[in-house]
Amino acid sequence: MTSEFALIDAIARRVRRARVHTRGVVVGIGDDAAVLRVSVHEDLVVTTDTLVEGRHFERGWLSSRAIGWRLAAVNLSDIAAMGATPRFALVSLVLPRHVRAASAEQIEAGAIAHLARHGAVVVGGNVASTRGALVCEMTLVGVCRRGRAWRRRARAGDAIVVVGALGAAAAGVVRLKRGVRRGSLVGAYRRPTPRLATAAVLAGNPDVHGAVDVSDGLSSDVIHVCEASRLGCDVNAEALPVARDVRRFCAARGRSPIEWALHAGEDYALVLSVAPKRAGEVCRILERAGEPAVVVGRFTARPGRYRLVEGGRARRFEPGGWDHLKA
Amino acid sequence: MTSEFALIDAIARRVRRARVHTRGVVVGIGDDAAVLRVSVHEDLVVTTDTLVEGRHFERGWLSSRAIGWRLAAVNLSDIAAMGATPRFALVSLVLPRHVRAASAEQIEAGAIAHLARHGAVVVGGNVASTRGALVCEMTLVGVCRRGRAWRRRARAGDAIVVVGALGAAAAGVVRLKRGVRRGSLVGAYRRPTPRLATAAVLAGNPDVHGAVDVSDGLSSDVIHVCEASRLGCDVNAEALPVARDVRRFCAARGRSPIEWALHAGEDYALVLSVAPKRAGEVCRILERAGEPAVVVGRFTARPGRYRLVEGGRARRFEPGGWDHLKA
Repeated sequence: MTSEFALIDAIARRVRRARVHTRGVVVGIGDDAAVLRVSVHEDLVVTTDTLVEGRHFERGWLSSRAIGWRLAAVNLSDIAAMGATPRFALVSLVLPRHVRAASAEQIEAGAIAHLARHGAVVVGGNVASTRGALVCEMTLVGVCRRGRAWRRRARAGDAIVVVGALGAAAAGVVRLKRGVRRGSLVGAYRRPTPRLATAAVLAGNPDVHGAVDVSDGLSSDVIHVCEASRLGCDVNAEALPVARDVRRFCAARGRSPIEWALHAGEDYALVLSVAPKRAGEVCRILERAGEPAVVVGRFTARPGRYRLVEGGRARRFEPGGWDHLKA
Repeated sequence: MTSEFALIDAIARRVRRARVHTRGVVVGIGDDAAVLRVSVHEDLVVTTDTLVEGRHFERGWLSSRAIGWRLAAVNLSDIAAMGATPRFALVSLVLPRHVRAASAEQIEAGAIAHLARHGAVVVGGNVASTRGALVCEMTLVGVCRRGRAWRRRARAGDAIVVVGALGAAAAGVVRLKRGVRRGSLVGAYRRPTPRLATAAVLAGNPDVHGAVDVSDGLSSDVIHVCEASRLGCDVNAEALPVARDVRRFCAARGRSPIEWALHAGEDYALVLSVAPKRAGEVCRILERAGEPAVVVGRFTARPGRYRLVEGGRARRFEPGGWDHLKA
């Protein structure tokens, strides 16, 4: 984990040292997206995310169109994690010689189609060539009501609510590496669901104190929230939303589905910190909106104490997500 | 040229077919930057540009810090070409294993320093790893007064005003390829000047009808303006701003400095379309602001007729810029 986050910290320090006036920057480096104030009523939410061939996918795993669809998904997920509405996208492609223009157009088509489903539109971008790997990048701009963006924050006692399921996409990656090209696990990797319906029904809801999307793994992303808010957490192992296919996948490999769900990234589930007495009501609101939501634990007033509670016994857990620099 | 622009056209058609509501999109795909309306008083101007190792630079040509500086320059130039003020940047790095974290931090440091000089700040970004080439990408958000962004447009009769000089950066690339690491030409490649002072003194000036930055080559970028406005152009060969070093460079290689200036990209000079009777005054305003400006020709009411006038004789010229897909 360390190197990517260490680099981001170093960058944040350099930005502070540059002492440029940061008027308009509500949230800078270090959250799911930046929040910018350019208007009286609305804040802008801006994020960028990248898919790199050989790193986030291999050729043969995804059609060109599916690459574009997933590129949109990972960016839409960041906008959802801010409680915002996606609006405008820039798509940037760095194309190796073996990628034909028709494939590049299909990547764009997949991104355009997925964005359109959520009311967002491609307004620009860039195309370059390379002797190296295919790199697909999107910058996505969303809007939310002024001051209402969800940060990576929680309050002591808040319920940890997970929207979506855990572990399926990572299991799909294992399947793909072994040559399997079909099935629900592969589908979970190919088409993760950005939780924009959650953002839509809960935006501005005062019971939601913060949010983060699970890109690196639940353990790692929940610990980010704890660190940012000087809290600890108790996670209830039995409550983790693990699909039956994932349990079967783990059983066949002698793996613990709990550990898998805790440390697997790539699903883009959403973690909300919710006022404890309102967690049931928030889950009901989400279920009515078609979003699968469950309380998996709570944030505690014990900074640095991260516990997994299983069969009545608690043990410490560590972040176990995927480092985008080292992996 | 064809393939990159053909791809961009295909993408623009797909965006239109997606029929997502484009409320707020003042300028979409195809200009130096997109223009978005999210506020009553100001428009947002958003651009993205990429530097790819092995394509836009080779290792040894630029220090890590200089890569970041140039990354900021090419994006700042797009904001200048819209007559806007840069504000917020996202920096995305795709790092090969041989690039250490310290180098990545230096790339960011170069970008942060150059942005700070123009009052802009890094608010986020992304870091990923690759087995391929180093890819550095920036998305830059600027602001301008509502409805006042400069488009790639001109009116018949407008003077063509070039701000900055032509051909030095491309000559610098030739020098670098031959192992030369110093001198004014190499410096022109390493540290192009984004023409933000031009944007600052002329923003909202009704005599300026449009602008484009010269990233692909004057011939190619002026023809873009002509095509977008259904115009032709007469360019005066003798008026092209070619530095003495570039003339010497061309003389030593038996090349025409005119052709070199016409077709070389990478300088990020600015082309303004200016009301003909006001061109002298606009050049004086620019000179007072320290921006070297000169009238090099005019846009004509003859769509598709692109002429270079030299020694009293006119001949047709073709776009000769750099295709980022083919080169």
